[in-house]
Amino acid sequence: MPVGGEVASGVNTVWALVVAFLIFFMQPGFALLESGQVRAKNVGNVLMKNMTDWTLGILSYFIIGFGFSVLIATLTSGQAITPMDSLFGHFGGASGWVGWLVGAVFAMTAATIVSGAVAERMNFKAYVFVAAAMTAVIYPVATGITWDGGLLALADNPANNGFIADIIGVGYQDFAGATVVHMLGGLAGLVGAYMVGPRKGRYDENGNSRPIPGHSMLLAVLGTLFLAFGWYGFNVGTSGIYDGANAFLGAQLGRVALNTTLGMAGGALAAMLVSTTWQGKPDPLWTANGLLAGLVAVTGAVPHVTWWGGLILGSLAGALVLPTFRWTVDTLKIDDVCGVFAVHGMAGAVGTALIPLFAYESGGTMILGDPWAFGGIDALGMQIVGVIVIGIWAVVGSAIAFGIADLLFGLRVTDEEEEVGLDEGEHGVTVYPEFVGGEPGTPGTSGPTVTPDGGELRTDGGRSLNGGDNE
Amino acid sequence: MPVGGEVASGVNTVWALVVAFLIFFMQPGFALLESGQVRAKNVGNVLMKNMTDWTLGILSYFIIGFGFSVLIATLTSGQAITPMDSLFGHFGGASGWVGWLVGAVFAMTAATIVSGAVAERMNFKAYVFVAAAMTAVIYPVATGITWDGGLLALADNPANNGFIADIIGVGYQDFAGATVVHMLGGLAGLVGAYMVGPRKGRYDENGNSRPIPGHSMLLAVLGTLFLAFGWYGFNVGTSGIYDGANAFLGAQLGRVALNTTLGMAGGALAAMLVSTTWQGKPDPLWTANGLLAGLVAVTGAVPHVTWWGGLILGSLAGALVLPTFRWTVDTLKIDDVCGVFAVHGMAGAVGTALIPLFAYESGGTMILGDPWAFGGIDALGMQIVGVIVIGIWAVVGSAIAFGIADLLFGLRVTDEEEEVGLDEGEHGVTVYPEFVGGEPGTPGTSGPTVTPDGGELRTDGGRSLNGGDNE
Amino acid sequence: MPVGGEVASGVNTVWALVVAFLIFFMQPGFALLESGQVRAKNVGNVLMKNMTDWTLGILSYFIIGFGFSVLIATLTSGQAITPMDSLFGHFGGASGWVGWLVGAVFAMTAATIVSGAVAERMNFKAYVFVAAAMTAVIYPVATGITWDGGLLALADNPANNGFIADIIGVGYQDFAGATVVHMLGGLAGLVGAYMVGPRKGRYDENGNSRPIPGHSMLLAVLGTLFLAFGWYGFNVGTSGIYDGANAFLGAQLGRVALNTTLGMAGGALAAMLVSTTWQGKPDPLWTANGLLAGLVAVTGAVPHVTWWGGLILGSLAGALVLPTFRWTVDTLKIDDVCGVFAVHGMAGAVGTALIPLFAYESGGTMILGDPWAFGGIDALGMQIVGVIVIGIWAVVGSAIAFGIADLLFGLRVTDEEEEVGLDEGEHGVTVYPEFVGGEPGTPGTSGPTVTPDGGELRTDGGRSLNGGDNE
Repeated sequence: MPVGGEVASGVNTVWALVVAFLIFFMQPGFALLESGQVRAKNVGNVLMKNMTDWTLGILSYFIIGFGFSVLIATLTSGQAITPMDSLFGHFGGASGWVGWLVGAVFAMTAATIVSGAVAERMNFKAYVFVAAAMTAVIYPVATGITWDGGLLALADNPANNGFIADIIGVGYQDFAGATVVHMLGGLAGLVGAYMVGPRKGRYDENGNSRPIPGHSMLLAVLGTLFLAFGWYGFNVGTSGIYDGANAFLGAQLGRVALNTTLGMAGGALAAMLVSTTWQGKPDPLWTANGLLAGLVAVTGAVPHVTWWGGLILGSLAGALVLPTFRWTVDTLKIDDVCGVFAVHGMAGAVGTALIPLFAYESGGTMILGDPWAFGGIDALGMQIVGVIVIGIWAVVGSAIAFGIADLLFGLRVTDEEEEVGLDEGEHGVTVYPEFVGGEPGTPGTSGPTVTPDGGELRTDGGRSLNGGDNE
Repeated sequence: MPVGGEVASGVNTVWALVVAFLIFFMQPGFALLESGQVRAKNVGNVLMKNMTDWTLGILSYFIIGFGFSVLIATLTSGQAITPMDSLFGHFGGASGWVGWLVGAVFAMTAATIVSGAVAERMNFKAYVFVAAAMTAVIYPVATGITWDGGLLALADNPANNGFIADIIGVGYQDFAGATVVHMLGGLAGLVGAYMVGPRKGRYDENGNSRPIPGHSMLLAVLGTLFLAFGWYGFNVGTSGIYDGANAFLGAQLGRVALNTTLGMAGGALAAMLVSTTWQGKPDPLWTANGLLAGLVAVTGAVPHVTWWGGLILGSLAGALVLPTFRWTVDTLKIDDVCGVFAVHGMAGAVGTALIPLFAYESGGTMILGDPWAFGGIDALGMQIVGVIVIGIWAVVGSAIAFGIADLLFGLRVTDEEEEVGLDEGEHGVTVYPEFVGGEPGTPGTSGPTVTPDGGELRTDGGRSLNGGDNE
Repeated sequence: MPVGGEVASGVNTVWALVVAFLIFFMQPGFALLESGQVRAKNVGNVLMKNMTDWTLGILSYFIIGFGFSVLIATLTSGQAITPMDSLFGHFGGASGWVGWLVGAVFAMTAATIVSGAVAERMNFKAYVFVAAAMTAVIYPVATGITWDGGLLALADNPANNGFIADIIGVGYQDFAGATVVHMLGGLAGLVGAYMVGPRKGRYDENGNSRPIPGHSMLLAVLGTLFLAFGWYGFNVGTSGIYDGANAFLGAQLGRVALNTTLGMAGGALAAMLVSTTWQGKPDPLWTANGLLAGLVAVTGAVPHVTWWGGLILGSLAGALVLPTFRWTVDTLKIDDVCGVFAVHGMAGAVGTALIPLFAYESGGTMILGDPWAFGGIDALGMQIVGVIVIGIWAVVGSAIAFGIADLLFGLRVTDEEEEVGLDEGEHGVTVYPEFVGGEPGTPGTSGPTVTPDGGELRTDGGRSLNGGDNE
C-alpha cells in the first residue's frame, strides 16, 4: 500500500540528505588514502588537490556540469534537444537542490579518484584545470548517456530511447556508478599517469619498477575504512526508501545493503589471499585495496544480483587488484601511484559487465544455473557495450583534458621541485615540521624555527616567499 | 498537504538524532584542527581540553545552561519571568530529551572553539573553569536573547517581544548560529588569547611576529573536513523536515543544503586566491581556514539568501580570513593560535549582518537589484544591532569568566612548563613517544622505556609522578 | 495514534540503515584506539586484524552465526527446536537483510574488542581463527540465550520461556549489549591475553609491571571519539522510531539519547578524577578509557533508568576503569594491552547488573528511594544471574577457541618476530617508513629505498619476500 506523497517526500529527503553527507565523507577518505601512499614531502599537495576537487568541483558542476549532462542525454537519444536556457533551470528551484547535492557528491567522487594516480609530480595548476574539466564535462557526459536517459538508456516511450540502447533493445545497468563514476575516474587517472610520466626513480635505468613506499599505511587504511563508510551512502542511498509510486522499497534496500557488505568482504579476503600467495604474507595495503575493489565491483550490481553473486563479483575484483596493478606498473610502465586503475577501473568494468551472470528473477528467487534471467544474452551484450563506450569516453575525454592542461600549464613540475617535494615547491609549506628529516622544528624549544637554508617557518609551517614578509 | 502529527514527529526525530550525531562529530573535528596547529609537545593537552569541553559541558549545560537560557529570554523580553523551579522542567520529560541533545551539541561547539585560541600556554584548571562557564552561562545568554525569544526576538504576541526587537520592529535572524555559536566562541577565544598573553617566542624583542608552526598540517586539514561533514548537520539540520503545521519543508531543506555547500566552496577558493596573492603560492592551511570561514558566514543565512548570495557571503568570509588573522596577530598583537577570531568571529559577524543584502522573496525568485526585500533597511539595521549586542556580550562575558579563572587558578602555566610542553607539565604524558625528539622510546626494542631524566614511561606514555608507583 | 505500517517500515528502515552505518564506523574507531596503544612496529598488524574481523566476520556471521543464534535460543528455552534448514532462511529473504546488517555490525563489534587485549604478540593465523569463532559461535550463543529468546528471556507464551528466566520469573535486561556484546568481548580478550601470555618485557624478572607506551595517544583518543559517535547508533539505534504497533517511541528515544550522553560524560569525568588522584595529573588516555567505560556501562540500561541513574552508572564504570586495569595487570599479571577487560568487561557487568537500582516507573517519574520498582528484587537477582551466565560462557567459549587456535597454529609469534615487530614478521610491511627509527626512507630523495639488511621496500612499504620479485 503506497504512503502519501508528502510522507514519501519527507522520508526520502531525510534519507537523501544523510546519504549525501556520507558520500561527502568519502572526500576525507580519498584524502587519507592518497596521503598515506605518498611521501611526507607531498602530503600538503594531496590535501590541496582534495580540497580543490571538492570546492572548485562544486562550482563547476553547479554552473556547467549538471545542465550539460541533460544536454548530452538529449543529443544522444531520441529526445527533443533541451533548449539552452532550460539547462540552467536548477538555478531557480530550491526544491530540487537536495537532489542536486546528491548528484554533486557523486561527481566529486569521480573527480577526486584521478588525483591518486598522478600524485607526487603533477603541476598543481594543471591538476586544477583537469579537476574542473572532470566535473564540468567529462563526468556529465557519462551521466548524460546513462542515468539521464541518453545513448545507453531505454525510455518509457521508445521514441526517446538512447541510440545504442534502441539498437540492442536493452538498457545499460549501472546502479550507483561502478562505471559511470569509478571506472571513469580510474581510467582518467590511468591516462593522466601515463601522460604525466612516472615519478623520478620509479623505474631504474633498465626500466624495472622501483617501488616508492608511502609515508603512512595507517592513513591509507583509515582512508579505506572512511570510504567504506561513505560507500554505504553511495550504494544503498542510490535506492530511495519509497519508489515513485510511493511504495516501500524494503526488499531492494535489504539487497543493496547486503550486497555492498558482501562485496567488500569478498574483495578484501580475496586480495588478502592473493597477496599472501604472491608476496608470502598477508598485506594490509592490498587487503585495503581489495576491499575497495570489491565495493567498486558491486556498485553497479547491488540491486540486480543474488547475494552470492555480490560475493563473487566482489571477490573477483579483489583477486584482480594486485595482478592488475602489477600489469599497469610492470607491463604498461604506467606509474599509477595509488593503483586507481586496478581499484576503480578494472573492478568497475568487470563488476558491471558481469551483472547478468548473477541476476536474480524479480521475485527474488535465486536462479543458479539460469544466468540469463536478467534480460538474457542481450543484457550481457549491452553491459559489455556500455562498459566499452564509457571506457572510450573516459580515455578520450581525459586525454583531451590532460592535453589542454599540458598546453596551458605543463603537466609536470620541475625535477628540482619533485626532488624537494611538491609541498615546498607548489605550496611553500612543510606538513610535519617536527617529524620528518629532523631538520626543521626542534620540539621543546620556543621561538621561531629556522629552516636549513635560513628561511623562516610561517604559522602554517611554510616559509616566507615574499622577502620581508616573514609570516 | 500536511502529514499526520505522529508521522511528522517520527521523521523529524530521525532527522534530529542524525543531526545531533553529526554535530557531535565536530568534536573530533575541532580536536584535530587544533592538534595539527600546535607543537607535538602540547597535543595531549588539546585532546584533554576537547574531551573535557564535551563531558563537563554536557553536565553544565544539562543542569544549568539549558534552563538559564529560558530565564534570560524572559528577563529580556515582555514575557512573564519563568519561575525558578520550571527552569529544571526538562529533568522530568523524556520526550523532550532529543531536542535537548540537539541544543547541547550546539552549546559544546561554542565552548570548544575557545580552546584553539588559547592553546599551548593556558593552565588546564583555568581552562576547565572557562569551559564550564561557557556552557552554563555565556552561551545560554546568547541563545536566551535570540532563539529562546529574548532581547532580539519578535514574538507572535507583540507584548512578548524582546526589548530591542520591539523598538526596531524586526527580529534578529541567525538561523543556525553564525553569531550565537561561532562569533560568540571566536570572540571569547580572542579575549582569552589576549588575557592569557602570547606564547613564549611568539613575538621577538621588537614585537614582531615569529610564527610557530603546528606539528601536522594533515591533522588540521582532516579536522577541517570532519567539521564540514558535521556542519551539514549544523546548518541543514536546523531545519526540520516538516514544520510545526506538519507541512513538508522541501524547498527550505534544498536551500540550506545548497547554500551550505556553496558557502564552503566560495570560502575555500577565495582564501586560496588570497593566500596565493599574499604568499605567492596556494596554501593548504589557509584554504582549509577559508572553507571553515565560508561555512561560518552562511550558517546564519542559509534559508534566507539566494544561492549566489550564499556563494558571495562564503567567498567574502574566505577572502577576509588571512587579512583578519594578520590584523589580529600583527596589529592587535594577540596570539590567537588557530585563528578562531578570523575563522569564527569575523566570518560570523559579516555573514550574519549582510543577510538582508542577499535575501530572496518568499516565493523563491531571485531579486538581484532589490537588496531590501528581506524586511527592508530595518532588517539590515537589526542585523547590525544584533551582531553588536551579541559581540559585546561575548567580550564582556568571556572577560569575566577568564578573569575569575585567573583569580582562582591563574591563567597561565609556568615558563618551564610551557618550555617542556603542557603534555608533560599538565598531564604527565608524551603523545608520540617514538616519533619526536628521539629521546624516549626506541622502536624495535622491548622492555620498559626510560626517559632522559631517569623516569619511567607509563602504559599511556607518561611518566610516574608518585615515587614508587611506576605505572 | 499509530501510523500506517508502510510509514513505520519506511521510517524505521531509514533509521536502521543509518544506525548500521554508524556502528560500522566503530571499526575504524577500534582500529585507531588499538593502533595508538601499540608500538609503531605493530600497527600494520592491528590494521590487518581489524579489516579481517570485519570482512571474515561478515561471512562467518552471515553463513553460520545468524542462524546459529536462533538454534541456541530454541535449544535453551521451551520453544520448538528450529529445523536445521530454516536456520538459513535469511539467505532467501531480501526484506530481512537490513535487519541482518544491524545484527552483523553488533557481532563485529564483539569480535574486534578481543583484538586490543592480545596485541603485539599474537600469531595472525590464530587470531583469524578466533575472530571467525567469535562471529560464528561465541557471540551467537550470547544473543541466542538473550535477545533471540533463549535461556535468560521471558516469552509472551510462558511455555516458550528460557529455562532460567522461567525459574526466576523475570527476563534478563540488556538493551543494546553491555554484556551480550561488550562484556563478552572484554572477557574473551582477557582470556586470550592470559593464554597468549604477556609481551616480552612487560614484566621484569621480579614480576613487576614494566609499561610499554603506545606510539600515538592522539590516535587512541581519536578512536575513542569515533567510537562515541558510532555508539550513538549502537545505543539509540537499538530503539526503533515506531514500535511493533506503529506507535511513536519519542520518550524512549529521548531517554536512550540522554542516558548515552550522560553515561559517557560521567565516565570520562570520573576517570579523569581518579587518574588525577592516582597519578597526580589528569591523564588523557584514562579519560578516554573512562568515556568508553561510561558508554559500555549504560549500553544495557539506557531505556530503563532515570537520567541520574545513567549518570551514576557511567561515573561508576569510569571510576573503576583505572583500578580494574591495575588489578588485571598487577594482580592477575595479565597483559591486556588496551585494557579491554576494564573498559568493556567490568563496565558491562556492573552497568547491567545494577539496572534495577536506578529504574524508573513506566510513567517516567523518578523514584529515588524505591530501587525495586523495575521488577523488584527478582529483577536484581536475574540481572546478576544473567551477567554470571554470559560471563561464564564468554570465558569458556573463548578459552576453547583460543585453545583450538593454539593447537592449529600456535598462539604466539616467535621471540625474534616480536622483537622486530609483527608488521615485519607477519605482514612484511613497514607502516611509517619515513618516521620511525630513521633507517628506511629518507625524505626528499627519490629512487628505491633500501632497508638496513639490504632488502628493498615495496610500494606498500614492505619488502620483497620472494627472491627476484622485487615489488
